[in-house]
Amino acid sequence: MKAIAVEPGAGTPSLIDLPVPEPAPGEALVRTLRVGVDGTDDEVIAGSHGGVPDGDDRLVLGHEAVGVVEDPNGTDLEEGQYVVPTVRRPPAGVETNDYFERGEPDMAPEGAYVERGIVGAHGFMAEYFTSPADCLVPISADLAPVGFLVEPISITEKAIEHAAAARSAFDWQPESVLVLGNGSLGLLTAAMFRTTMGYDRVYCLGRRDRPHPSIAILDELDVTYIDSRETPVPEIPEVHEPMDVVYEATGYAKHAFESIEALAPNGVAALLGVPGDWSFEVEGGRLHRELVLHNKAVVGSVNSNRDHFASAIDTMAGLPSWVIEDVVSGVYGLEEYKRAFSDPTDDATADDDTTIKTAVEFSHI
Amino acid sequence: MKAIAVEPGAGTPSLIDLPVPEPAPGEALVRTLRVGVDGTDDEVIAGSHGGVPDGDDRLVLGHEAVGVVEDPNGTDLEEGQYVVPTVRRPPAGVETNDYFERGEPDMAPEGAYVERGIVGAHGFMAEYFTSPADCLVPISADLAPVGFLVEPISITEKAIEHAAAARSAFDWQPESVLVLGNGSLGLLTAAMFRTTMGYDRVYCLGRRDRPHPSIAILDELDVTYIDSRETPVPEIPEVHEPMDVVYEATGYAKHAFESIEALAPNGVAALLGVPGDWSFEVEGGRLHRELVLHNKAVVGSVNSNRDHFASAIDTMAGLPSWVIEDVVSGVYGLEEYKRAFSDPTDDATADDDTTIKTAVEFSHI
Repeated sequence: MKAIAVEPGAGTPSLIDLPVPEPAPGEALVRTLRVGVDGTDDEVIAGSHGGVPDGDDRLVLGHEAVGVVEDPNGTDLEEGQYVVPTVRRPPAGVETNDYFERGEPDMAPEGAYVERGIVGAHGFMAEYFTSPADCLVPISADLAPVGFLVEPISITEKAIEHAAAARSAFDWQPESVLVLGNGSLGLLTAAMFRTTMGYDRVYCLGRRDRPHPSIAILDELDVTYIDSRETPVPEIPEVHEPMDVVYEATGYAKHAFESIEALAPNGVAALLGVPGDWSFEVEGGRLHRELVLHNKAVVGSVNSNRDHFASAIDTMAGLPSWVIEDVVSGVYGLEEYKRAFSDPTDDATADDDTTIKTAVEFSHI
Repeated sequence: MKAIAVEPGAGTPSLIDLPVPEPAPGEALVRTLRVGVDGTDDEVIAGSHGGVPDGDDRLVLGHEAVGVVEDPNGTDLEEGQYVVPTVRRPPAGVETNDYFERGEPDMAPEGAYVERGIVGAHGFMAEYFTSPADCLVPISADLAPVGFLVEPISITEKAIEHAAAARSAFDWQPESVLVLGNGSLGLLTAAMFRTTMGYDRVYCLGRRDRPHPSIAILDELDVTYIDSRETPVPEIPEVHEPMDVVYEATGYAKHAFESIEALAPNGVAALLGVPGDWSFEVEGGRLHRELVLHNKAVVGSVNSNRDHFASAIDTMAGLPSWVIEDVVSGVYGLEEYKRAFSDPTDDATADDDTTIKTAVEFSHI
């Protein structure tokens, strides 16, 4: 079968041939339909994040997948069932651990997990993959074509759950939300806040010129687009309003700190970006004081568990279908898979790039 | 009656004469027993925090009080009942607002409250004070002599409640705790973690040489004292262990950021200090990444509500009595009230100063 793999640091993925995998007891064999591409893939390709399985010199990419059960192999799944795989698995040679037993592998510390397609385990960018049946979340046929969005949406489900938990010790009534980043995750999250979660006042920060398809989506959602070049994050409370929730999906390290300034009293910032090293000056005394005197909270969040995947599927069913259609800017067959990845040698500016979210199609539904 | 008041910025409090206040309907008249002194009082005296009531040019100090009901004035309280007053009240001329109605004045934003003895309302350092009966929390006779510790302990009750809430979205099993600061609040909090909350591994950071009474208390509690001059906060995970909880009571702004490095995966830092302005460089990319990849949380917390006062009284009943006795280093009558306040003209070094917690006694129990 064909698979898309990368030698970390090679800078570009390539198509390789692999044998179709044999499901072990408790595992099902899944025929892959589509696999999404995101910024984490870029980091893995660049070699700045993740790593190959022990004893291997390349990694099959892909952690945002949807497939169809080809062989249930004695599990409770049925042949033909559409499924989305979760990402974390116990480390090689380990059957399980407390985090997996509790259904919370997303809370496992480094060393207590591998991530398929990211670190220590091959991903889903292959014509077939195997997975423990309890790591395959059923999805309906009508959502299956965009089932590769379940994983990114599940990331937001978790972050919002943890942010809300951080405000659960008092009667919190959030009304205003700022999403930092108008990439695919930021757009989907802004759409969730605006539609399925019912917030009236949602803002989304980016640094793109109009017209751009991502800004068109925000306009249509009645989400206020904020150009960070005109209104930096610390000025947002004065220009717009203080925010009860800030959701950061930029990986721009200054945003982690500026979020504190954008928050209203009793607000919470959920951080999801993974920046590289960068030292800079902060008004640390003022930020510390802001956190304390206004009861503010900051919550980091990574990965997601099966419950978040299930919530994400419910959320997708509630999102306007046009949002999902407009966010998915390209689905490419194996013969043109390279178009699904951003090209580091492309010197087009971000403004010229109308790509929002891409996926590779491994087989037709 | 005698009262201790300050003209903000005057740098030193003074004894003044005031008429005994008349309780309004719904208020009781309380005879003041003892009122604690803390760092907030120092800031109010220095003029760097707080402010006088509208139309007044001085502020009666004191927000950590215990008293006895002198005149219930038709409220449900009984004459002779020992009580501890909460601190926040609705702003002048405002009967109530949503925060007070919900019993959560501690979550009110600036402008929606005054704080007795701190900002906008006279405090409890007077021979008598009046208070709405529902802002007076009953305390038993045996705890009344140290009832001025209820307010500071309630501050910790709230911070711990909010920190735990921030970890309530998953199965959190904290085992290690680091308290930053070995002043009276840090010591009481370390004692709470070690005794009433039952943590085996509690650490407390300070910058004092042995021998010092505060370190003796930690030793007796089997809390590990960490000298920050030998082991800065970022090195604590390596020298000791990563911490599931960090509780900051130093007001040292760098600690707000270094706390992130001291945390174990899934840990939470509760910030309580109120630093002045201070800009400095941080390894912002690494801190942001730490928060995200290890699901860490930071929660600021200020003030406390009636429920926290009630919890604090329960906690005090559970603390070893020697801890409270040793933390209270001095209770001074009105004739020597100045000894209860730190003397800004005293050039003794911190190492020479064996003061931990002081109070002024206004009348005998």
